Amino acid sequence: MLCVGLDPDPSRYPDAVAGAPDATERFCRAIIDATADIACAFKPQIAYFASQGDEDALENICTYIREQYPNTTLILDAKRGDIGSTASHYAREAFDRYAAHAVTVNPYMGTDSIEPFFDHPGDGGVILLCRTSNPGGDDFQSLVADGTPVYTHVARRVAEHWSQLGDCGLVVGATYPTELADVRKIVGDLPILVPGVGAQGGSAVTVAEHGASHEGRGLIVNSSRAVLYASNGDDFAEAARAEALRTAADLTC
Amino acid sequence: MLCVGLDPDPSRYPDAVAGAPDATERFCRAIIDATADIACAFKPQIAYFASQGDEDALENICTYIREQYPNTTLILDAKRGDIGSTASHYAREAFDRYAAHAVTVNPYMGTDSIEPFFDHPGDGGVILLCRTSNPGGDDFQSLVADGTPVYTHVARRVAEHWSQLGDCGLVVGATYPTELADVRKIVGDLPILVPGVGAQGGSAVTVAEHGASHEGRGLIVNSSRAVLYASNGDDFAEAARAEALRTAADLTC
Repeated sequence: MLCVGLDPDPSRYPDAVAGAPDATERFCRAIIDATADIACAFKPQIAYFASQGDEDALENICTYIREQYPNTTLILDAKRGDIGSTASHYAREAFDRYAAHAVTVNPYMGTDSIEPFFDHPGDGGVILLCRTSNPGGDDFQSLVADGTPVYTHVARRVAEHWSQLGDCGLVVGATYPTELADVRKIVGDLPILVPGVGAQGGSAVTVAEHGASHEGRGLIVNSSRAVLYASNGDDFAEAARAEALRTAADLTC
Repeated sequence: MLCVGLDPDPSRYPDAVAGAPDATERFCRAIIDATADIACAFKPQIAYFASQGDEDALENICTYIREQYPNTTLILDAKRGDIGSTASHYAREAFDRYAAHAVTVNPYMGTDSIEPFFDHPGDGGVILLCRTSNPGGDDFQSLVADGTPVYTHVARRVAEHWSQLGDCGLVVGATYPTELADVRKIVGDLPILVPGVGAQGGSAVTVAEHGASHEGRGLIVNSSRAVLYASNGDDFAEAARAEALRTAADLTC
């Protein structure tokens, strides 16, 4: 159930890797190796690579995950969203260039911005933002239309339409357990990716209680910074592993 | 008022540049040189570079625009949107790496996903998706909450709050002239970027009638494919110029 988010911020690298020309790759590989037997998924966040101009590192890390840990799901966290002709290029970015199993996508532009991800050769999945973990998620996601919040309209669209087109999941923040339970009721057994555990303050125990499907499954709970930066000493990989084990244990309580 | 969108698709390059190792740069530079005295802005669409693994070309093209045409606005079309810590990395991508004057951003995640763009050093602007030009824009943007569609809530949030934090604009598709007029009423003189003219079927004349502010200003009307691919012969740059002139003339009618 645990997903380890890879948000590599050079200003927080431990001394053991900081300053190396391939510091980002070395840092991410160490975290991956330390947590791969605990995590069901890795989720690199593309912004951290783009801000460094280091897409090559992201390519190498994705290849590493696919080759070394073939049973682990690779989720590209990109939150893309654009009209069809452009979306097909984002699908190539996620599924061809980075070989992701799934990519996060913003639903605001609607059906024809989602379809190109399903039309892309292969069986890449799409994970739609629904109720995000941040405070600003209230601004528009909680507006009430036809008696229910906008995020429930997104959940229904995914459950009733988009999930018929290809593999779909949804993003619902750990910081909103009631909303998580609401979305679970709407989407049945579809996977829900839950960020916001750890650094953002969400509780893994609460998430498991509110978000699991009737079979106790269907959750992918992400922790990024709490795992990555559990220690900035030479023991950073061991500390990451310990934090990942703690979170995974909470999830199975 | 005319913005030329740079959506470089290798499958549509004219023979004069196709196959060259720097085909994307050569194609874009030729279009830029042919239209820079007509356009007020260029808008590279990052997906087309990312799908080719060619961020270097995008960096070079952005540098070229900034150096050769310093009075032209450079808009990075990226439609990013994420929580604060990640959004600050997207701000670096847009404003530091690509030296954009403004970047398009998806509003779905709300205020704290927008603020990092304003907190970034410099005076980079943010252009928020409001009512997009594609059919799927109806799915959620047109849901009615508190008596008005979601996209008007976005417009009000930009007008009343986000535009107090830094330079803001909005995206409203040419394909929805009534909605364009509604948004103009809400946002006063804020700039509106209008895609959907040309290949997507929107009319430049209609856009100017419905979207201009009371001073007849405030519009940036984008045309991408109709200009870029006006001809696939050796005259592609001249044909792009002729199409840009036609669109610009329509806008000033």
